[in-house]
Amino acid sequence: MKSNTHVRLRDYDPAWTGSRKSKQELAEVIQENLERLTAAQELLWANEQYALLMALQAMDTAGKDGLIKHVMSGVNPQGCQVSSFKQPSAEELDHDFLWRYHTKLPGRGHIGIFNRSHYEEVLVLRVHPELLDRQKLPHRAHGKKLWKQRYRDINAFEEHLARNGTIILKFFLNISKREQKKRLQERLENPQKHWKFSPADLAEREHWNEYMEAYQDALSATSTDHAPWYIIPADNKWVSRWIVSEILVQTIHGLKLKPPKLTKDQQAALAKAKRTLAKD
Amino acid sequence: MKSNTHVRLRDYDPAWTGSRKSKQELAEVIQENLERLTAAQELLWANEQYALLMALQAMDTAGKDGLIKHVMSGVNPQGCQVSSFKQPSAEELDHDFLWRYHTKLPGRGHIGIFNRSHYEEVLVLRVHPELLDRQKLPHRAHGKKLWKQRYRDINAFEEHLARNGTIILKFFLNISKREQKKRLQERLENPQKHWKFSPADLAEREHWNEYMEAYQDALSATSTDHAPWYIIPADNKWVSRWIVSEILVQTIHGLKLKPPKLTKDQQAALAKAKRTLAKD
Repeated sequence: MKSNTHVRLRDYDPAWTGSRKSKQELAEVIQENLERLTAAQELLWANEQYALLMALQAMDTAGKDGLIKHVMSGVNPQGCQVSSFKQPSAEELDHDFLWRYHTKLPGRGHIGIFNRSHYEEVLVLRVHPELLDRQKLPHRAHGKKLWKQRYRDINAFEEHLARNGTIILKFFLNISKREQKKRLQERLENPQKHWKFSPADLAEREHWNEYMEAYQDALSATSTDHAPWYIIPADNKWVSRWIVSEILVQTIHGLKLKPPKLTKDQQAALAKAKRTLAKD
Repeated sequence: MKSNTHVRLRDYDPAWTGSRKSKQELAEVIQENLERLTAAQELLWANEQYALLMALQAMDTAGKDGLIKHVMSGVNPQGCQVSSFKQPSAEELDHDFLWRYHTKLPGRGHIGIFNRSHYEEVLVLRVHPELLDRQKLPHRAHGKKLWKQRYRDINAFEEHLARNGTIILKFFLNISKREQKKRLQERLENPQKHWKFSPADLAEREHWNEYMEAYQDALSATSTDHAPWYIIPADNKWVSRWIVSEILVQTIHGLKLKPPKLTKDQQAALAKAKRTLAKD
């Protein structure tokens, strides 16, 4: 989405399918993209200039884990790390709210995937402000002012990161409330999916409208040129996986990376090594 | 110093002694302050709301290490950590320039001392811009623009930290070029101080004027209400130690911390524990 625009989520159709390709066809495109992504990741690694951060946010069941599995499996794990952010530790709560995310950021040459991200600090904390008490903030702004301060801190943080070589892509997997009901029912009825069910999912579903409002405000305030938000239709899992894989591949290709050129000294060292080995 | 003012370092006298107290008298005041500081640190720890960051910057021989030793020895090390920043590691260079400093920040209840700090990124890197190449930045601004961007990133970072409970105090130990000469000569002539001498100190001395300019600009651009700079006269070691210890004590006292009050539930739990132990 463009920067500085106010989003209305109801303008975005979670069930959009776009190309009308079949699930099978989309899976093939994703497989092709994976190969391109793997090659692109190698260039990212060899150049060691850019890091790529992919932040995933969504309501429960929207498909974050499946997306990571299907879009990224195959990329060299040496250059790709997933960080999941669950309940913060005591040490994390003892620091500013960006601390635990900053420490997990990918370095140059790496792809970092945030399964939930620093945006939780303006989403779940907004819907459940009682969690703020655990952050033990000495002088806390209240109401809208607090969230505006946090949007500003996040924007400044991301701008700094972008300037220092981190490409930031933020994906909101936009699932409809109706589709979530279907998926939760599946988890309850299919014994193989029982392990995925958590009563907390139902409790959070009760706050659906508050979450949508929190998402709308956060996306509106923090979609910037250097760190754009993408609202991904997520009622069809293969559609969301396909779109995200396209954006990833196009973003890395857009960097127009080439294998690093050797300096004359390095070329000379290579030639010398060849001669040494020949005589070995 | 006040925020948004342009500093001229030549207006600050490195040999200022203020109170005309003797070294002995100053050492006694520092000792008293240490006791107050130790008590204040306990309250900081018990309240677990604020962190205190003390950033020390100076030219070589200005007395950073001696200051830490004489002002802070005695504070409970469980609540006080010193981080020294020397040559960055490969992993650190692979991240944005604030990363390694952010990871070392003190948590709530702690005092963190940065022996050299994130300001090195706009001081030594400005005097030696060739070091920037090692940061492998993909699109790098040049000249003044780069430093302005960095000042802005630092200010946004510190504002975020302050808002989230970190008290930030920044000290520039202001030594004169003449006094530095004297101290370097001492290191060369006194066998017990030989280990302190590094030929690099002489090399950096050659860049004295460039450093002063870099300090002037950095101090002018980054002294803010939430993270002020203090320019500390440093030609007399006991004077600088005394002033810094005063500022530390006054800052923590200014927080007006009290031992945390127990909630009714906690009081009830305490009463119950007393009864249990009595019957033991």
